[in-house]
Amino acid sequence: MSMKLPKGDLDLLALGETLVDFISTEETDWLRDAYTFRKYQGGSPANIAVYVSKLGGHSAIISKIGIGAMGQFLKAELKRAGVMTDYLIMDHRVHTSVVFVSRTPRTADFEAFRSGDYQLEPREIEEATIERAKIVHASTFALSREPCRSAIEKAFKLAQNYGKIISLDPNYSSVIWPDHREATEVIHHMLSYATITKPSRDDASRIFGPDRSPEEYIELFHKMGPKIVVFTMGAEGVLFSEEGKLTHIPARPVTVADATGAGDSFWAGFIVALLDGNSLERCVLFAREIVELKLTTVGPLPGTIDRKAIYARLDAAIQAPEAQPGGQ
Amino acid sequence: MSMKLPKGDLDLLALGETLVDFISTEETDWLRDAYTFRKYQGGSPANIAVYVSKLGGHSAIISKIGIGAMGQFLKAELKRAGVMTDYLIMDHRVHTSVVFVSRTPRTADFEAFRSGDYQLEPREIEEATIERAKIVHASTFALSREPCRSAIEKAFKLAQNYGKIISLDPNYSSVIWPDHREATEVIHHMLSYATITKPSRDDASRIFGPDRSPEEYIELFHKMGPKIVVFTMGAEGVLFSEEGKLTHIPARPVTVADATGAGDSFWAGFIVALLDGNSLERCVLFAREIVELKLTTVGPLPGTIDRKAIYARLDAAIQAPEAQPGGQ
Repeated sequence: MSMKLPKGDLDLLALGETLVDFISTEETDWLRDAYTFRKYQGGSPANIAVYVSKLGGHSAIISKIGIGAMGQFLKAELKRAGVMTDYLIMDHRVHTSVVFVSRTPRTADFEAFRSGDYQLEPREIEEATIERAKIVHASTFALSREPCRSAIEKAFKLAQNYGKIISLDPNYSSVIWPDHREATEVIHHMLSYATITKPSRDDASRIFGPDRSPEEYIELFHKMGPKIVVFTMGAEGVLFSEEGKLTHIPARPVTVADATGAGDSFWAGFIVALLDGNSLERCVLFAREIVELKLTTVGPLPGTIDRKAIYARLDAAIQAPEAQPGGQ
Repeated sequence: MSMKLPKGDLDLLALGETLVDFISTEETDWLRDAYTFRKYQGGSPANIAVYVSKLGGHSAIISKIGIGAMGQFLKAELKRAGVMTDYLIMDHRVHTSVVFVSRTPRTADFEAFRSGDYQLEPREIEEATIERAKIVHASTFALSREPCRSAIEKAFKLAQNYGKIISLDPNYSSVIWPDHREATEVIHHMLSYATITKPSRDDASRIFGPDRSPEEYIELFHKMGPKIVVFTMGAEGVLFSEEGKLTHIPARPVTVADATGAGDSFWAGFIVALLDGNSLERCVLFAREIVELKLTTVGPLPGTIDRKAIYARLDAAIQAPEAQPGGQ
């Protein structure tokens, strides 16, 4: 592991959307046909903070929500998961952002009602908070609007000055951010601060256009700044690159029960393993264990995940690497 | 009936909020404790338009919603109920307003996420539309924010010029409109255009403060403009006033199965009976039949309500007025 680990009592400081997901209880491709919805705590950065906490890490979120029932629910859920909510800003002038999602095994139809999440302001980012973190992480969703974009840039600049690990998830969606040209410019600029990034093949295709090889996409991400690019390809596994040195980790076949939040659980696993001082390869192997656990579990993962047991499983697999080729 | 009926092919032109109500499926006093919600077409002016249509009237709504799944749902629901949606504006720049409501036999806890509803603009109110209406109706909810407030004022001014019946529901809520002083000023001003108004005792108490008699409240409303004040008092019935001439219509005891939208169904009944050329007393008696139907029915009223049958019932009751004193 070549990355120098910064100091701080917070393993992860996540920035960006904390929102309420209303997922239809009926299975339907079209949201307009759904009548009943169940509420869940959501938002990619908040979910990563939750998974880091469940894995035994110390995480916090900087995010803006409303003071009403929905905001109270989110704060209670994050607390229950062990996420520090000292920097979760409840502002009476905003609504809590909510997203309605159709439950479907195909691509979910969704409608986002954004309010509080993007109204995070630069003056609400304090230097002392950034100083506490080892890793500062943000989502692209949160970059799509001002003033939140400027707030995240301020956090990234401070984090850079303190030599923190800076993580950006280039999870670009044209529905959330219709101005593609602006999006690519902002993502390009913000990746210049980032030290690690986790594009999926879909993200890369949406940002740079289709029809490039994984190696070409990875090179494009490196050129923007991050020294470590973890490129996820679903069933084709993960290709990670440390300054251009590529390693492939295959996916193992699993029966998918619930793919919601899989990418977030993967990245939380990677972060926790990175802060444990593991090699990048072992970080990805650890993250693969977590995402498999997520994919085969309906609903959220249990309150605590024993990461020593997962390391023990990784060690056992190294003892007998081909015992179950391609098995579960 | 002393009121001159204006001409127009639209019985009712409603202005104001069309929104999605998400009502919890669990019974709970507190919204934060509710997890599952069912979506319904909502918004008081839209509901009145729906009930007028179900009673065989021709109604339309001027309202702003989004273009996404929620907006599509609302448009489809209004069409299904027979409400003309030619003036329902779907605007890609706004979200459809949504309201989360706790299902409880006590006072519902709610959280409104407003966006499209209050972004109706004066330039979107066309003179030709107002000219088509017999009655122009608006809610106080819709007056609480600009530019919708100015849009409604434009509609009321046009309606006044054309000699239309102008109806304002003074359904003031401090949660929706926290600036009480501004609210009373605006309600006062807008009531100066109104010819008919339907305050509940709670509305009156919230606007003018508690501890006045129904007669005092009615006088205050008359002073603001409307010649006809229909003052509803729940189990104590309705006191209506035509320029100060008071008549009391008692409520009849019913077993309440679902009080949602009761006030809107009452006002729709009153409007339909008014346009049928009935005396004010008969309008209130007709409206009482409709609200009783609503109170004893779980969920929305059926697609069509036979108003001839209701008139026949009223006539039969006049034949034998004391047959069932206080009975159902």
